[in-house]
Amino acid sequence: MKSKTPQDSYTEITEMVLPNDTNPLGNLMGGRLLHLMDIAAAIAAGRHSNRVCVTASVDFVDFKSPIKLGEVVIITARVTCAFTTSMEIKLQVWAENTLHGTRRECNHAYYTFVAVDQGGQPIPVNELKPTTAEELELQAGAKRRRELRLILAGKRTPEEVAPFKELLQQRIDEQQTKKP
Amino acid sequence: MKSKTPQDSYTEITEMVLPNDTNPLGNLMGGRLLHLMDIAAAIAAGRHSNRVCVTASVDFVDFKSPIKLGEVVIITARVTCAFTTSMEIKLQVWAENTLHGTRRECNHAYYTFVAVDQGGQPIPVNELKPTTAEELELQAGAKRRRELRLILAGKRTPEEVAPFKELLQQRIDEQQTKKP
Amino acid sequence: MKSKTPQDSYTEITEMVLPNDTNPLGNLMGGRLLHLMDIAAAIAAGRHSNRVCVTASVDFVDFKSPIKLGEVVIITARVTCAFTTSMEIKLQVWAENTLHGTRRECNHAYYTFVAVDQGGQPIPVNELKPTTAEELELQAGAKRRRELRLILAGKRTPEEVAPFKELLQQRIDEQQTKKP
Amino acid sequence: MKSKTPQDSYTEITEMVLPNDTNPLGNLMGGRLLHLMDIAAAIAAGRHSNRVCVTASVDFVDFKSPIKLGEVVIITARVTCAFTTSMEIKLQVWAENTLHGTRRECNHAYYTFVAVDQGGQPIPVNELKPTTAEELELQAGAKRRRELRLILAGKRTPEEVAPFKELLQQRIDEQQTKKP
Amino acid sequence: MKSKTPQDSYTEITEMVLPNDTNPLGNLMGGRLLHLMDIAAAIAAGRHSNRVCVTASVDFVDFKSPIKLGEVVIITARVTCAFTTSMEIKLQVWAENTLHGTRRECNHAYYTFVAVDQGGQPIPVNELKPTTAEELELQAGAKRRRELRLILAGKRTPEEVAPFKELLQQRIDEQQTKKP
Amino acid sequence: MKSKTPQDSYTEITEMVLPNDTNPLGNLMGGRLLHLMDIAAAIAAGRHSNRVCVTASVDFVDFKSPIKLGEVVIITARVTCAFTTSMEIKLQVWAENTLHGTRRECNHAYYTFVAVDQGGQPIPVNELKPTTAEELELQAGAKRRRELRLILAGKRTPEEVAPFKELLQQRIDEQQTKKP
Repeated sequence: MKSKTPQDSYTEITEMVLPNDTNPLGNLMGGRLLHLMDIAAAIAAGRHSNRVCVTASVDFVDFKSPIKLGEVVIITARVTCAFTTSMEIKLQVWAENTLHGTRRECNHAYYTFVAVDQGGQPIPVNELKPTTAEELELQAGAKRRRELRLILAGKRTPEEVAPFKELLQQRIDEQQTKKP
Repeated sequence: MKSKTPQDSYTEITEMVLPNDTNPLGNLMGGRLLHLMDIAAAIAAGRHSNRVCVTASVDFVDFKSPIKLGEVVIITARVTCAFTTSMEIKLQVWAENTLHGTRRECNHAYYTFVAVDQGGQPIPVNELKPTTAEELELQAGAKRRRELRLILAGKRTPEEVAPFKELLQQRIDEQQTKKP
Repeated sequence: MKSKTPQDSYTEITEMVLPNDTNPLGNLMGGRLLHLMDIAAAIAAGRHSNRVCVTASVDFVDFKSPIKLGEVVIITARVTCAFTTSMEIKLQVWAENTLHGTRRECNHAYYTFVAVDQGGQPIPVNELKPTTAEELELQAGAKRRRELRLILAGKRTPEEVAPFKELLQQRIDEQQTKKP
Repeated sequence: MKSKTPQDSYTEITEMVLPNDTNPLGNLMGGRLLHLMDIAAAIAAGRHSNRVCVTASVDFVDFKSPIKLGEVVIITARVTCAFTTSMEIKLQVWAENTLHGTRRECNHAYYTFVAVDQGGQPIPVNELKPTTAEELELQAGAKRRRELRLILAGKRTPEEVAPFKELLQQRIDEQQTKKP
Repeated sequence: MKSKTPQDSYTEITEMVLPNDTNPLGNLMGGRLLHLMDIAAAIAAGRHSNRVCVTASVDFVDFKSPIKLGEVVIITARVTCAFTTSMEIKLQVWAENTLHGTRRECNHAYYTFVAVDQGGQPIPVNELKPTTAEELELQAGAKRRRELRLILAGKRTPEEVAPFKELLQQRIDEQQTKKP
Repeated sequence: MKSKTPQDSYTEITEMVLPNDTNPLGNLMGGRLLHLMDIAAAIAAGRHSNRVCVTASVDFVDFKSPIKLGEVVIITARVTCAFTTSMEIKLQVWAENTLHGTRRECNHAYYTFVAVDQGGQPIPVNELKPTTAEELELQAGAKRRRELRLILAGKRTPEEVAPFKELLQQRIDEQQTKKP
């Protein structure tokens, strides 16, 4: 087992938006972007673990800015935290319009991958050693996000989840009350 | 504006897993599945709103069961809740092995779509009228999930989000303490 | 060997028409539709026989109504008759325009599939038990269509085919006579 | 309007069978072959008519010989008969194994295409002048096949179709009687 | 080992330009054309050698005439010279506009392929016997092109390459001097 | 018009080799790699010129090292020289095996792109200002490569080309003499 830095798994993919990737408005379809993000994440996970890696989960993804036909999509991926057999990967998406010479951030997301052996069974991965303040913060956040993931995946008992539901309901009730 | 039931937007897509959809273990890649789910959701959103619909967000997706080359993927989609210009769509994924005559549930997810006009601007959608107990429960849950989405998308103030973070940290601390 | 109903093999596939599927008028190309119909039929045949199934023949297909870019194609397939190692599958095609909320029937066709073993050799399939009047009629029609198929495939002697050719020629001659 | 020979529309397409074109036995899927045949026929119809051409119908296609991954598919197409706005195209399919240096005929079929104007309306096509005995025979046969097509498409009255159905039923009855 | 003529490896592929093959001006992308040329060359090399063949090199390719969406690309390939384990293949590209009934030559190129055994190791190929004056000239030219290839691939010593560099520099200097 | 450095157009694309990209030995097909290189070059040319750019020519490409199914291809591109309306782009290709944690250089090539306006006519591009010794050397080499390109494209008079042909023939004759 080796120890690696987030920089060791840094991956950058660049794609042109082609006609078949677009909806009737000529914008990149969300699902196609999720697919490209998954490929970038799989390469980053492979670079960290030197194993075949499979998608375990995808966290909430928010699509903020449409990407047009003919624009260029840039996706970066890096491992933020290595658990026993799984890795969290942070993805960042930019759209670039080469005609205007502009680039804008579109969204970011966290994918979780599991390293597997030839039989498809989970297998331990290399250790991750963050080296910068930002990398350390991402690793700390990964533990909070993992807890949320376990709740959302139904891997926590109802008692453990109850306070979250209550808080959420309280928020919704406040929201309703504010309406005229 | 019309009023529609979840059944009106019910969509079912069926696909064979082809070689180019698979990873080196011969399993459907997660990103390709997210792409197929997006297509199913887009059709369901279009059926509800009679508008061009674009992906606004994807909630947490958990990949439980690998789907093999040659198996059949079945994805169902239906609108669970219509907000002003957006719709929540529930997706359910099954894998079928026609050689064994077996079918297993793989995962489910919630995608949010926004209806847009020709200029890409959000436009109000048809009302949703749930007609069964299950549909009513999905609609009620949609409001809770939307609140969580707003928190995750950073559209809530730090004060509003603070209690969630605290709860999560508490949970993580308990988890650490349990370890021998 | 099991006995199955046509409902057991019922298959529904749903696809959005994408730019690469269309001709210069923006209509779904006939060949792409034949390809999608083949996939639907292969799944239905696999569901009936629990075997790898290969296309044996395609009956006359008439393309009545063009399907536009951005529309949704729905194809249903079900086994109508099981012979020794082959199955006839009825396909029905609809086009849906989600913007207009309309759906129209486009065409239907009969594909024949053969179940094969690992070496590619034909292997007996499950029995088919129609349960409705419509299913019984489809099964009866399948025997007539099979006879026509054998004639068209050149698997009948010239003596057996002669009366058909004569009748056809008679029809064409009448047609010519009617012209001014 | 011009007069053209079948040779003027002669088209030959050559494709390698790639992994995504194949079924679990590694054979070219029937639907993919129908798709390639449609492309060849569309080019031949365009060469004859100098118009955008759309698939009107496909006659019975019999798949005799499986084509393997890595083999080469050769499809030839030529117009056999020009009607007012439609054309019949004969397609012939060969599979070539370059490793063995062998080539075998796989099947043939007749596709019908209609020439259309910018609005998608049928428009008259160039005249066809067959120049060889084989071309004249194909043109004569095209008239018989067209009559059969009109019957199969339901464009003949029940009275006109009755004798065919009777003949077919008679054949089926004879067949049943022969069985031990 | 057999002896074959260039005609024995003659290959013709015909493709319609589809939306996904085009740039924002609606023209076939150069890289897609290079890909199609490679497929044609691979088939021709396979026909000559009856072996799996892999691309060894591509000579200078000049793109003279843009090819539009909806046009037809015709590529011919034939072996011009067989070396020990490699073959030079000449490719010619035409674009055809079936609406105008016109065809224009677009470019030509030379690809070199190597025949390999199951382990990927080079293996001797069949001999080539040109039979026409044009074929003999192509074979003679192939030897000159091969020498240039070895220079460009850095497989010649600096002493061997020096005179070429000198001549080129001289030409460039003359060019500069002519400018006002 | 702006002045840009080679670094401004630096482009990196990363792709996984998928089944449909491979030949029967499971290696990336040369034509598919040429296609990916063209996409990388088009993005780099667009970044330098802020124009739609089309492939003008591809210099000699030598394929040294096969890339396997499941490996990762990394292609970098940067503008080395800007002429009036055209740009030379240097491409470098690496293959990475994430399971072994190894990366090897596969090949490099020079593509030439032309910037065009909406009507497809060539249009002047931004000036290139190399800033490092390596970039200055690439720019100087670009002028020599361009001269060679003009010779290969037949844009030089026979008198201008004669000395090159002579030198080549001399080299070939020496080669023949050395053989026993």
